[in-house]
Amino acid sequence: MTDFFAGISPVKYAPDAPAEDLAFRHYNADEMIAGKRMEDHLRFAVAWWHSFAWPGGDPFGGQTFERPWFGDTMELARLKADVAFEMFAILGQPYYCWHDADVRPEGATFAESKRNFEEIIDYIGEKMEGQGTKLLWGTANLFSHRRFMAGAATNPDPEVFAWSAATVKNCIDATHKLGGENYVLWGGREGYETLLNTDLKRERAQAGRFLQMVVDYKHKIGFKGAILIEPKPQEPTKHQYDYDVATVYSFLKEFGLETEVQMNIEQGHAILAGHSFEHELAMAAALGIFGSIDMNRNDYQSGWDTDQFPNNVPEVALAYYEVLKAGGFTTGGTNFDAKLRRQSLDPKDLIAAHVGAMDICARGLKAAAAMLEDGGLEAARAARYAGWDDATAQTWLTSASLDQIEAQVAGGGIDPQPRSGQQEILENYVSRFV
Amino acid sequence: MTDFFAGISPVKYAPDAPAEDLAFRHYNADEMIAGKRMEDHLRFAVAWWHSFAWPGGDPFGGQTFERPWFGDTMELARLKADVAFEMFAILGQPYYCWHDADVRPEGATFAESKRNFEEIIDYIGEKMEGQGTKLLWGTANLFSHRRFMAGAATNPDPEVFAWSAATVKNCIDATHKLGGENYVLWGGREGYETLLNTDLKRERAQAGRFLQMVVDYKHKIGFKGAILIEPKPQEPTKHQYDYDVATVYSFLKEFGLETEVQMNIEQGHAILAGHSFEHELAMAAALGIFGSIDMNRNDYQSGWDTDQFPNNVPEVALAYYEVLKAGGFTTGGTNFDAKLRRQSLDPKDLIAAHVGAMDICARGLKAAAAMLEDGGLEAARAARYAGWDDATAQTWLTSASLDQIEAQVAGGGIDPQPRSGQQEILENYVSRFV
Amino acid sequence: MTDFFAGISPVKYAPDAPAEDLAFRHYNADEMIAGKRMEDHLRFAVAWWHSFAWPGGDPFGGQTFERPWFGDTMELARLKADVAFEMFAILGQPYYCWHDADVRPEGATFAESKRNFEEIIDYIGEKMEGQGTKLLWGTANLFSHRRFMAGAATNPDPEVFAWSAATVKNCIDATHKLGGENYVLWGGREGYETLLNTDLKRERAQAGRFLQMVVDYKHKIGFKGAILIEPKPQEPTKHQYDYDVATVYSFLKEFGLETEVQMNIEQGHAILAGHSFEHELAMAAALGIFGSIDMNRNDYQSGWDTDQFPNNVPEVALAYYEVLKAGGFTTGGTNFDAKLRRQSLDPKDLIAAHVGAMDICARGLKAAAAMLEDGGLEAARAARYAGWDDATAQTWLTSASLDQIEAQVAGGGIDPQPRSGQQEILENYVSRFV
Amino acid sequence: MTDFFAGISPVKYAPDAPAEDLAFRHYNADEMIAGKRMEDHLRFAVAWWHSFAWPGGDPFGGQTFERPWFGDTMELARLKADVAFEMFAILGQPYYCWHDADVRPEGATFAESKRNFEEIIDYIGEKMEGQGTKLLWGTANLFSHRRFMAGAATNPDPEVFAWSAATVKNCIDATHKLGGENYVLWGGREGYETLLNTDLKRERAQAGRFLQMVVDYKHKIGFKGAILIEPKPQEPTKHQYDYDVATVYSFLKEFGLETEVQMNIEQGHAILAGHSFEHELAMAAALGIFGSIDMNRNDYQSGWDTDQFPNNVPEVALAYYEVLKAGGFTTGGTNFDAKLRRQSLDPKDLIAAHVGAMDICARGLKAAAAMLEDGGLEAARAARYAGWDDATAQTWLTSASLDQIEAQVAGGGIDPQPRSGQQEILENYVSRFV
Ligand SMILES: [Co+2]
Ligand SMILES: [Co+2]
Ligand SMILES: [Co+2]
Ligand SMILES: [Co+2]
Ligand SMILES: [Co+2]
Ligand SMILES: [Co+2]
Ligand SMILES: [Co+2]
Ligand SMILES: [Co+2]
Repeated sequence: MTDFFAGISPVKYAPDAPAEDLAFRHYNADEMIAGKRMEDHLRFAVAWWHSFAWPGGDPFGGQTFERPWFGDTMELARLKADVAFEMFAILGQPYYCWHDADVRPEGATFAESKRNFEEIIDYIGEKMEGQGTKLLWGTANLFSHRRFMAGAATNPDPEVFAWSAATVKNCIDATHKLGGENYVLWGGREGYETLLNTDLKRERAQAGRFLQMVVDYKHKIGFKGAILIEPKPQEPTKHQYDYDVATVYSFLKEFGLETEVQMNIEQGHAILAGHSFEHELAMAAALGIFGSIDMNRNDYQSGWDTDQFPNNVPEVALAYYEVLKAGGFTTGGTNFDAKLRRQSLDPKDLIAAHVGAMDICARGLKAAAAMLEDGGLEAARAARYAGWDDATAQTWLTSASLDQIEAQVAGGGIDPQPRSGQQEILENYVSRFV
Repeated sequence: MTDFFAGISPVKYAPDAPAEDLAFRHYNADEMIAGKRMEDHLRFAVAWWHSFAWPGGDPFGGQTFERPWFGDTMELARLKADVAFEMFAILGQPYYCWHDADVRPEGATFAESKRNFEEIIDYIGEKMEGQGTKLLWGTANLFSHRRFMAGAATNPDPEVFAWSAATVKNCIDATHKLGGENYVLWGGREGYETLLNTDLKRERAQAGRFLQMVVDYKHKIGFKGAILIEPKPQEPTKHQYDYDVATVYSFLKEFGLETEVQMNIEQGHAILAGHSFEHELAMAAALGIFGSIDMNRNDYQSGWDTDQFPNNVPEVALAYYEVLKAGGFTTGGTNFDAKLRRQSLDPKDLIAAHVGAMDICARGLKAAAAMLEDGGLEAARAARYAGWDDATAQTWLTSASLDQIEAQVAGGGIDPQPRSGQQEILENYVSRFV
Repeated sequence: MTDFFAGISPVKYAPDAPAEDLAFRHYNADEMIAGKRMEDHLRFAVAWWHSFAWPGGDPFGGQTFERPWFGDTMELARLKADVAFEMFAILGQPYYCWHDADVRPEGATFAESKRNFEEIIDYIGEKMEGQGTKLLWGTANLFSHRRFMAGAATNPDPEVFAWSAATVKNCIDATHKLGGENYVLWGGREGYETLLNTDLKRERAQAGRFLQMVVDYKHKIGFKGAILIEPKPQEPTKHQYDYDVATVYSFLKEFGLETEVQMNIEQGHAILAGHSFEHELAMAAALGIFGSIDMNRNDYQSGWDTDQFPNNVPEVALAYYEVLKAGGFTTGGTNFDAKLRRQSLDPKDLIAAHVGAMDICARGLKAAAAMLEDGGLEAARAARYAGWDDATAQTWLTSASLDQIEAQVAGGGIDPQPRSGQQEILENYVSRFV
Repeated sequence: MTDFFAGISPVKYAPDAPAEDLAFRHYNADEMIAGKRMEDHLRFAVAWWHSFAWPGGDPFGGQTFERPWFGDTMELARLKADVAFEMFAILGQPYYCWHDADVRPEGATFAESKRNFEEIIDYIGEKMEGQGTKLLWGTANLFSHRRFMAGAATNPDPEVFAWSAATVKNCIDATHKLGGENYVLWGGREGYETLLNTDLKRERAQAGRFLQMVVDYKHKIGFKGAILIEPKPQEPTKHQYDYDVATVYSFLKEFGLETEVQMNIEQGHAILAGHSFEHELAMAAALGIFGSIDMNRNDYQSGWDTDQFPNNVPEVALAYYEVLKAGGFTTGGTNFDAKLRRQSLDPKDLIAAHVGAMDICARGLKAAAAMLEDGGLEAARAARYAGWDDATAQTWLTSASLDQIEAQVAGGGIDPQPRSGQQEILENYVSRFV
């Protein structure tokens, strides 16, 4: 045991705990919701990078956090892992996620980085076995080092493409070895700063080729987890290629990969793209590519990715409603790709942030499940489209041609009358559950 | 001749005209640019709706314009057409565009609207013949009447779907009859106000079916023009399905229509979607679906569609650069889907706005053609990707697998070194042309 | 009794009412919260314009609502008033608000408009007496008619300034006559579309003069209500002069009116200005100019003023927390400057929207009052600034000079150590109340 | 001479230089514009921080630039200064600016930092004398070190207030010693991340006190330069107190400092605040607080401060038009608070970026001066407000009361008629100059 979380006990479900206690007031892992344990619905994961690797910097200032494991040695990397697993235990979070660069120090060469990585993956593997925490997904950091400044798969320099491919290969191997349930590709710097020096078509082709290789390799080694892409519209680059769910789908369709790849959708990125979180979830479900979520919000007033822990039940409930409608998570889960505010210096802040987020999610899930069971929204939705059950209407959707329909309309008898969309009544309905 | 433009003579190319004169200082229809007449490059079109039908209202106030043709009779519709063609003549604009609702009064029934429409289309056809002005595209207004409040093709009520299909059929017929070179679908209210009452998947399928019927009908009647979709991310609805070029491409691919349909891209809509105009153009070209443009800007400080005449040469030049790189317009052109500010009451404002816009476009085109001829940007771009010409690099793009590449990288010898992206140097280059 | 709300009974507090019933589940007018009746805390008001005058149009389509009172006669104006008071009774809302243009038909001349207005004000006055509904505030519509297209007080044409002054005079008179508790100025089109034709300094001076006359007149006639300005950053104009609370304060200070005028703050306008609602409320309180609120939200994804009914308790609670900290409303109240979505056609939608909003506000108020009573936030805030209680620190705030402080710091002994800002812990605290 | 800029000669005015040459094609220091040398109009300054201290990091990646002077020793600080002055010489820029933290290494104590600072200031002073480059302004970095994470003057911890005051004292001293023409306060982290832990009123009072001490100290030591505040709405904090010009004016008026302090206005910050650059300039001029500019743009598609070199002549021309209308710079100037894109690695990029920006500014200035001399805009503006010259109109602005005006209007004879605002015609006018 390190002493980083000294004085902080494992957090329990205790709805009536005193205000100052760290306790779950809503998240109760074993409670059954819609026929499944709450833990099995939510499948929470901690993100290694924000919780253990981020120093608290922003574009106008450097490190605010002073963690005993900050530094570039293997010994510190192990200390970091020790603290991480202590936090997983305190929170009772069943899953976690990593980038390679979060867990191992960068070596002087690719080979040295690889050795460092393999060694720490083994170390982490032992800790996982001892504790039962699982890996929701692994991923590669292909954006922080200066070699990636112009992208990874979409870099104008083929050597960066190769370096990136090699890195992903090793990250998939490690994910596979640790029993990870998914492998994620977030398009770090796959995008551009200026169109003036960019060949969109060529870079898109590079990305398509890269993804095909990833899918091929997954099958080759028998990795059964899902390959997930995480959309984001901008930041760090001015334009990120994986703008939003619909854009990624256009890419998957172009390269014939829409049955091989699913989406990891982050609330903050949905907002940056001009959408709501539930929109992106519903869109992915409609396109058959829903996978997993990053449950971290953006500040609506900030134009950059703030990656904050969720704290708004009405919003979270609408998100889980879409997740449940899509059948719930299979390999996916609820990752907190969220970082403390850089002024939240204390170990207790780190625990409290996760506890609060887990409670918010539990409340959202319960509300969503209750709405789905009640059926009010779905009944209203069904009623709104009920006209399509008509036989003539069905011919319009299947066999009729434009001129046949025109003849029917011009002949009279069709004169559509507006009906209320009942938006406020439906919003009131939702409010009764949240 | 009506007296609406009394005192305004046809506008001529006169670069040294006195400041107070209405004259083209840059647009010279017959001047050869990169082997083609300027007019044939730019293919300007006036939009009937903004120039002749819009009363000057906004969400906080009603009509400011007082046009003698405002009203709902066929006689006034003819007067409107008379004035329109007088304006086309004054400007020497080779093309124009309409919605059905711009040119004819709405009838009490579909059949009556159809009769009104056919009558006015004949009237317009005669004027076209007399004058030589051509139809760049026709389109249907499926959003203003209250029957369309919940969408057209994507309406929950199948009768609205049918009404819309019938309307589009007649609009395609009229476009065909007048020799129109394209038919445009802008997704008016194809979108949603709230997900709570919306079935995304079903509405997407309705839209797919509708578009298929449009394409089938086009072929059936032998219409040779292009079918164009105009993307827009929001407004009037909170979420418009045709968000941006990539989103529309995802839709076309899903329904197998990507070789049948092209894009009509509007600068203002690109901006609302979080993109630059040149991004959307380059994306459409990369995807092989570039068609036509609406050259009207958005105010960067306004969160709604302001549809203003263009007035920034550096921006316009980058747009035409993409158009020229894509091979220039074939059936497409430069439509001004732009409206006067509602305080610009005078007939002279209407002429001056178009003249200014045409001059801005002429300057942009000339700069774009000069840059392309000079070749500086393309040479820099080619140099940036030159590493891919290497034989090994080519294997990475074609045959190598992830583990083969990893072996090469782990073996040493590949250590990519960042090279300057030269953004400011390229921006300086462009500045020398605009 | 009209039959507009046929079948809809007065809405009662009935927390366990069946789901389909129109009932207050949280708003209980007589329930005591922090020593005051809930009704006296919240002081709800209906906005005449959105509920009874708005036809459902938007920039891409016209009227969707078909109300029996639409039209321009005095008889229809009386019918509209009849229905309005029926709605006030159904909702049990204690207050309402109007613009002159909402309640009376525009006349052919100023004098005729004035006669119409006086007549309908008398009619309304009788209804108020009979029913007990009160006027929260009156205001003048100085933006819808085309004469106001370039502003009212800030118009380049002095005749519009005069017309506006005359209109406001009559609206203050009517407000006074009806016992209104405030008079509001919202800067309709006080702003500009383009700086190119605008003299900012001159228009600011016109606005200052106008406001001084309003204040003078209020005192002259003995109107005891508050004069309120409602900030908004944009829409309808590209730049509205009353951008946000701080901007309006700069204006009040320049013209020496900061003790005469207070703020009416709307959530939607706060959001358009890049702020949170609670920010604007806290800022007004800090500046001593807090007055009243318009409790209608903006859609975070829409770049225009959507004026929607509130539906997010966590947001509303933070707003009422600032209201309570500022001492609660005196003359002010909670106006719903909110409109139905244009697809919400039914009379029931209008009632349900208000009922839902009132319940949301009741929940927010209760949570805010509980947080304030609990004192957790204020205790944490006080602790964070406690260092300032130190005597030396106090000299820094009062008497020390820069060089004296520098000598102390350079002398050593002062080396500030960061302390956690505890943002997530405070957010968790709030979440326990909402 | 260092060898950093090896091979780069001083940049000359050479309008016909070959495309590949670094040359001024528009900026000609000695050319007379509106009676003043171009250099004396523009008063260009290089920003030490972006050009020499910024390592190329962003929130998703670290250092990309590898500069030989990076590190924390006095020797490297001198090397940095050597290179800086070599760049000033190459560019012929007459001015530069610094933060204390840009020029000296942070010491272990305040006293050590002060010694480092004084030593390097002396070193810089010698270089200035030798070369003739002047200091446009100095400023203090009160935001990068973790001690400032919760603000400087507005920190909840009085020791940070004291540290900040002491730092500013020394920075003013150094500015004074070097003959600096202004001293700037940019509100680094004066703002908040969450209202929940913030006392707006108290922090505003701290800021007011701090600014008063700064002004007092300036007078005490006889510093004749201007004190400038640089507004910014957000980033790094969620809400920065110095939101925009109007907000800062409200603050100055509250603390009675509006005649002591002027504005340093940055284009990028204007855009983040929802304004145009020219708006902020015109507003400052109208309020009598215009001082200086930071001529660096924001990307309209990015929601954060991108600090890019200017490259759009039409925008820059409108900015200089406001500067010229305000009488031109007195102590102020044109600072490039602009950074290279992080992929622009080469020394040549640094020179080219400044050369391009200086040329853009020169073109903007020339266009602005020509428009002002031509007088077209001012004539149109004067005509638009000409009605106010009428004697009756003047009484409305001076002596009339609301009821007197109402009597005039109700009496008939006043019926304002809308006149065209001519926006497009004015935009065309501007386009002819840019
Ligand atoms: Co994120
Ligand atoms: Co994420
Ligand atoms: Co548009
Ligand atoms: Co368009
Ligand atoms: Co509003
Ligand atoms: Co309002
Ligand atoms: Co900046
Ligand atoms: Co700046």
